[in-house]
Amino acid sequence: MKKNFEYLGRLRKAMAEHAIDICIISGTDPHQSELPPRHWRGREWLTGFESENGTNGTAVVSDSDALCWTDSRYFIQAEDQLRDTGFKMMKEDGPEAVDLIDWVVEHAAQGQTVGIDGMTFSVDYARRLQDALSAKGVTLNTDFPLFDFIYPDRPARPLNPLFVHDEKIVGQSADEKIDAVLHQVELQGANAILISALDDLAWTTNLRAANDINFSPIFVGFLFLDHKNRVLFVDDQKLTDPVKAHLEKYNFKTLPYDAVKEFVAKLPASTDLLIDPAKTARGIFDHINCNVIFGGEGVAKLKSIKNETMISNLAIAMEKDGVALTRFFMMVEREYPEGKLTEVELGKRLRALRLADPSCVDESFSPILGWNEHGAIVHYEATPETDVTIQGDGLLLVDSGGQYIYGTTDITRTIALGNPTPEQRHDFTLVLKGHIALSNAIFPAGTTGHQLDVLARQFLWKEGKAYYHGTGHGVGYFINCHEGPQNIRLNINPTPLEPGMITSNEPGLYLEGRYGIRTENLIVTEKYANTEFGDFLHFHPMTLFPYDRKLIDLDIMTPEEIKWVNDYHQLVRSRLTPLVSAEEAKWLEDKTQPLTK
Amino acid sequence: MKKNFEYLGRLRKAMAEHAIDICIISGTDPHQSELPPRHWRGREWLTGFESENGTNGTAVVSDSDALCWTDSRYFIQAEDQLRDTGFKMMKEDGPEAVDLIDWVVEHAAQGQTVGIDGMTFSVDYARRLQDALSAKGVTLNTDFPLFDFIYPDRPARPLNPLFVHDEKIVGQSADEKIDAVLHQVELQGANAILISALDDLAWTTNLRAANDINFSPIFVGFLFLDHKNRVLFVDDQKLTDPVKAHLEKYNFKTLPYDAVKEFVAKLPASTDLLIDPAKTARGIFDHINCNVIFGGEGVAKLKSIKNETMISNLAIAMEKDGVALTRFFMMVEREYPEGKLTEVELGKRLRALRLADPSCVDESFSPILGWNEHGAIVHYEATPETDVTIQGDGLLLVDSGGQYIYGTTDITRTIALGNPTPEQRHDFTLVLKGHIALSNAIFPAGTTGHQLDVLARQFLWKEGKAYYHGTGHGVGYFINCHEGPQNIRLNINPTPLEPGMITSNEPGLYLEGRYGIRTENLIVTEKYANTEFGDFLHFHPMTLFPYDRKLIDLDIMTPEEIKWVNDYHQLVRSRLTPLVSAEEAKWLEDKTQPLTK
Repeated sequence: MKKNFEYLGRLRKAMAEHAIDICIISGTDPHQSELPPRHWRGREWLTGFESENGTNGTAVVSDSDALCWTDSRYFIQAEDQLRDTGFKMMKEDGPEAVDLIDWVVEHAAQGQTVGIDGMTFSVDYARRLQDALSAKGVTLNTDFPLFDFIYPDRPARPLNPLFVHDEKIVGQSADEKIDAVLHQVELQGANAILISALDDLAWTTNLRAANDINFSPIFVGFLFLDHKNRVLFVDDQKLTDPVKAHLEKYNFKTLPYDAVKEFVAKLPASTDLLIDPAKTARGIFDHINCNVIFGGEGVAKLKSIKNETMISNLAIAMEKDGVALTRFFMMVEREYPEGKLTEVELGKRLRALRLADPSCVDESFSPILGWNEHGAIVHYEATPETDVTIQGDGLLLVDSGGQYIYGTTDITRTIALGNPTPEQRHDFTLVLKGHIALSNAIFPAGTTGHQLDVLARQFLWKEGKAYYHGTGHGVGYFINCHEGPQNIRLNINPTPLEPGMITSNEPGLYLEGRYGIRTENLIVTEKYANTEFGDFLHFHPMTLFPYDRKLIDLDIMTPEEIKWVNDYHQLVRSRLTPLVSAEEAKWLEDKTQPLTK
Repeated sequence: MKKNFEYLGRLRKAMAEHAIDICIISGTDPHQSELPPRHWRGREWLTGFESENGTNGTAVVSDSDALCWTDSRYFIQAEDQLRDTGFKMMKEDGPEAVDLIDWVVEHAAQGQTVGIDGMTFSVDYARRLQDALSAKGVTLNTDFPLFDFIYPDRPARPLNPLFVHDEKIVGQSADEKIDAVLHQVELQGANAILISALDDLAWTTNLRAANDINFSPIFVGFLFLDHKNRVLFVDDQKLTDPVKAHLEKYNFKTLPYDAVKEFVAKLPASTDLLIDPAKTARGIFDHINCNVIFGGEGVAKLKSIKNETMISNLAIAMEKDGVALTRFFMMVEREYPEGKLTEVELGKRLRALRLADPSCVDESFSPILGWNEHGAIVHYEATPETDVTIQGDGLLLVDSGGQYIYGTTDITRTIALGNPTPEQRHDFTLVLKGHIALSNAIFPAGTTGHQLDVLARQFLWKEGKAYYHGTGHGVGYFINCHEGPQNIRLNINPTPLEPGMITSNEPGLYLEGRYGIRTENLIVTEKYANTEFGDFLHFHPMTLFPYDRKLIDLDIMTPEEIKWVNDYHQLVRSRLTPLVSAEEAKWLEDKTQPLTK
C-alpha cells in the first residue's frame, strides 16, 4: 500500500468529525483553472494520480468507497498510479462513463450530508449537485475545507512577483479595459463585477506573473470593479515597486487574497453584482449578501478581440518563434542520423531554443513531440517511461508554443525524417488541403466557427478519413494558450468570429500504431470587404514556419493551393531571413523553394 | 369602408357578451398547418388580408385596437388589403417588429381577460401567452370559439374522400409504421400518443386525400394510438369503401372528427399520453385528464427516413417530372420569340404538363416563375397584377414541383433566354459550384446539415456574395414538400442527416432589381463506406433535368466539377430518353452534350 492509504484514513477521520458522509474533492482551484497551482492540487496529493503539469480528476470518498473520476486522456496513467492507494478509477467519458453526480445521489442516503470545499467548485456545479441531492433529502455542506485539516505539507499559495505587461505592448491601458468591462456590466443590468477567472483578471489589469500557473503568465487573485472602486485581491508579497506604481496610477486598491469573502459579504445592498457562475467559486457566492446577476462572459469576449498593437506585436512573437523553430528543425535534421535524439531530449532542446529569447517567459503548453506511432496519440506527452529514439524512417509531429511578452504562439508541424511513404505524403497533403481551405475562407460577418469547420475536414472525409478533435481554439495574448469564447469545431458554438480574434487552424489525421499528422497555424480574423451583401471577413496567417515540402503530394493539389503554399513560404522566408545567420537563411531558402507541378 | 368593418363590430359584440377584453385570432388550424383549409381561415375572413394559397397572420382585437401581424413576405400585400378594414398591419419580423405577446401584455389591464379559440393555438404558444399574462394578473380564456358566433358563411370542414396510398408504393404497412411509432412512444416513457400533425397522420395511416390542404395530399383528422387501440378521428363522409376496408384490415376504429376532445377526456388514469406541444391544440390539451408527456417529434423522424421502395418509386416520380419539365422548357424556347408568354401563363402551362400524368395529384407548392428582376424576389408569386411578358434577354427562374403518388418533387432551374451576360454566367457558375460541392460531400455518420451548409456557399462568399435562405429542407414522400426534422442551413439543427432522408440542395443568388439564380435538386442521403474512422455517408441526386449549359462558365470550373456535370447530364439523358418522343430526345441530347474546356 502507498501512503495515500494513510491520507485516506486522515480524510475519513476529518469527515467523521465534521459529520460528512460523502466528500467530493475537486481537481481545480477557486478560479476554475485547468492547471491549478500545487497549493490546490489536494486531489492529486490525496489520490496519487498526478503529474508535473496537472491531471484532470475529481475524487469521491465515503466510508466504504474511494473513487477518482478522470477522462479518457488519463485512463492508462490513472489506472496505474491509483494502484494500491485505496482509490478506484472511474471513467468520465467513453462507453463505460458514470456520471459523478448520479453516483453520489445514488449512494447518499436520505438525511445524510455530502461535503465539498466550496472554494474549489463553481456556482454552476454546486447548484447542479445541490438540486440533485435535495431531491433525495440529502444535505450539501459547501464549507468543508478538508485540506486545512489533513494536508500538513500543503504548498503555499504561489507568491511569485507580479510584473506590468507594458502598455506599449498591449495597446490598451487598464483604464480603457476597465471602462469596456464596466460597459459590459451595465449591458447585463449590473453595477459591479467580481472577476475570478485568472486570464480575465490578467487581461483587465495588464498585470502578469511567471510561474503562478504552468505555461501561462497569469496570477492568482480576484478583482472587484464598480464605478468607484477597483479592488485587487492579491497577497502583498507579490507586489513589487513598479507594480505598486501601476496600481496607484490606475487607482487600484489592494486587499489580501483571503479578504475577498469578507469584502463581498459587506457590499452595500444597492450593489447588483455580476458574476460568472461557471468561473466563480461557490465558497465566495455563499458569502454574498447583495443582489447577484449571473453572466459575465462578456470579459472573455473583450479579451478575445486583439487590437492592432497586439496583432503587430504578435507578428514579432511569431518571427521569434519561427527563428527558434528554424534552429530546432535544423538541429533535428543534423543530429538525427546519429540516432541519439529522443522525444524527451527534443523537448528539452526546443524549450531551451525558445527561452533563449529574453522576451519568451515560458512555453505556452507542455509540448507534444511524437515520433511515428506516438504522433497518433493526440495528447501524447513524452516521459522517461514512454520515450523513444528518433531513428529509421518516419514522421515527427511537433506541437509546441511560447509565451512571449509580445504574444502567445502555438504551432504544429509534422516533418518526414528518412523517406516518407506515398501514403504518408498523401495523408499529409489531405490535411494540408483542409488547413489551406480554412485559412483561405471568406465569410459574412456573423459566421461562427462551427459553420466553417467542415472546410478543414472535407478532403479527409472524401476518403473516409477523419480526426475527432476541434479544428481550432481561441488563443490569448500573453495569457492562456486556450481561451474562448470562439472556436472552430463541429460542436455548436454561437459566438461569431470577429475581426481581431486569434484562432488556431489545426486539422490532423491519426493512424493508431502507425503515425500522426497535424498542421497548425494561428490565424487572425480580419475585415475583407463590404459588398451589397454585407460585411465579409477572412483570415490572415500569423504563424511563420515552412510546411515540409517532402510531404506535399502535388498530384492532389490544385494550382490555387500550390500558389497559396508558395506565397506563404515566400512570406516566411522574407520575414525570417533578416533575423537568422547565413547558414540558417540558406536552410530556410531551401525549405521554401517554390513548389512546381 | 369594407365589410370587414362590420365583421369587426360583430366580433366586439361577441367579446362583450363573453367578457373578453382582448381577443387573439390565430391564422392556423387545430393541426398547426402552414396552409389551413378555408374552414379555419377566419382570420383571413375577418381582416380581409387573404390569398388563395393562404397568408401568414395573427390578429388582435380590443375595444380600441384592431391589429394584424404578418411577416416580411406579406408586408406589401397586407398593407394594401387591410386598408379601410379597421385593421392596422403590425410587423412580425424586421427592424420594426413588435412581439405580439408583448403587445397584448402591455395593453391588458390587471383583472382583464384575454380570449382565444384554444383549438387554433398550440400548447406551446398558449403556455407562453399564459405565463406572460398571469405575471400581470390577466386571465386567459382558452375557450372562446369566436367563429362559431360570428362567421355565418363559414365554409365546412373539408370533406374530400380519403384514398389508400398503396402499400406496394409505400413499402411499409400501417402495422409496421404504428409499431415504429409506439416504439418511439415507449422510448419517451409514454404508453399512448395523440397525433395532431396532418403529415404525421397521413404517414402513419397510409391514407391521403386530394384538396383538403392545397399542394399536399394530407387530410384533416387526429389519430390516437396505444397498444390496444387505433382510433382515427375523421368525418364519416370522407370514408370510401376501399378506405373502410383498409381501416378494418389494420384494426382502426373511427370516430367523428369532433369526438376527439371527449375521447381524450375519458382516457383511463393509467394512460401516459404523448403529445407534441408544438403541434397539439391547447383546446384539446385542456380536455385531457390523464398524465401528459410532452415530446412526439419522433414521428417526424420516422417519416423523414424513406425506405428502399420509396426511394425507387421517387426515382419514377423524378422521371415523370423530368419529362414534364422537358416539355415545358422546350415549349418556352419555342414560343418565347413570339413575345407572348407571361409568367402567369407559364405557371398554367407547367401545371397542366405535370398534371397530364395520371399519377400526379397536385403541384407540391405554388410555383415560383420569375423573369429577370422577379427572379430576385425569393418568394415571388406571379399574379395578374405583377405579371410580365418574357421578352428580350434575361434569366428565367422556375421553382416548382409535383405531388406524384410515387413521391413529391421540388426542382429549381434557372435558364437564359436570349444572350446571357458574362456576369450572369459567372454568378450562375458560382451557384452551381456550391450545388455540386454539397451534392458531392462525403461525411461521417452523425453529421448535421448546419455542419455542411458552407460547402454550398463557399464560392459565393469568396467573392463577397451571399444568399440568405437555407440551402436545403427535408421533403416528404407524397406528403408535405417541406418537412423536418433535418435540413441544411446555417442555423443550428441538431438532427443528423441519415440514410434515406430526402433533402433539397438549392443555393442561389439574388441581385435586387436585376436577376435571381437558384439551382435545386433533391438529394438522398446514402451509406458510402465503413472505414477505420467509422461510417461515412454521401448524397445521391434524385432530380433529373439538365442545367443550362449556356450559363456555365467553364473558366471557373475544375475538371472534377465539369466531370460531375457531364456524368449527371449523362444520367439525365439515359433515364429520360426512353420516356419521350424522338423530337424531345433530340432536344435532351442537345442539352446534355458533354462540356469540354
